Amino acid sequence: MVVCWWFNYYTVFVELGDTDTKIELLHPLGEDSPIEGFLKYNPAGGIHHICLEVSDIHKAVDSLKGKVRALNPEPKIGAHGKPVVFLHPKDCDGVLVELEQE
Amino acid sequence: MVVCWWFNYYTVFVELGDTDTKIELLHPLGEDSPIEGFLKYNPAGGIHHICLEVSDIHKAVDSLKGKVRALNPEPKIGAHGKPVVFLHPKDCDGVLVELEQE
Repeated sequence: MVVCWWFNYYTVFVELGDTDTKIELLHPLGEDSPIEGFLKYNPAGGIHHICLEVSDIHKAVDSLKGKVRALNPEPKIGAHGKPVVFLHPKDCDGVLVELEQE
Repeated sequence: MVVCWWFNYYTVFVELGDTDTKIELLHPLGEDSPIEGFLKYNPAGGIHHICLEVSDIHKAVDSLKGKVRALNPEPKIGAHGKPVVFLHPKDCDGVLVELEQE
């Protein structure tokens, strides 16, 4: 289990066979966790976001300019210790999308 | 684009690089589409379900008995022309899960 102090959640990654794809199980860490906010509107749980790996996160964010807003244009360090940027769900058909540097 | 008359939706699969993982874009086909119901509660869109591939769908459903209810215990044919079973979101932490035969 990974504890993300900086994002205020616990996370467990479930690896799917020999693929690169993982399911990330999230649990809030403290009352000001963004996951706590999600559970307030989805008390039974649900799918919080999808994460897509990109080869160059700065180039990826630049390529989206004018089309998709980044919630944090300056990358933060995510659960894998790699730079991540979250994209605005309103620009992604209601889906919270995380980009993660390879 | 695939038109699923039997499930009442249009679908487009976006392949992610050279992985086995795909993003499925869904659009309702007619007013009695299950996607229409989803959009009623999520007018901005959102993540509808996840799909996991299994080697034997009957064995997979059997292994879940008493723990996770199947919405259609008898497999239907899904968008890839393969047998699929949907699992009850209330038994999957609020997530609609589709099992698809390999």
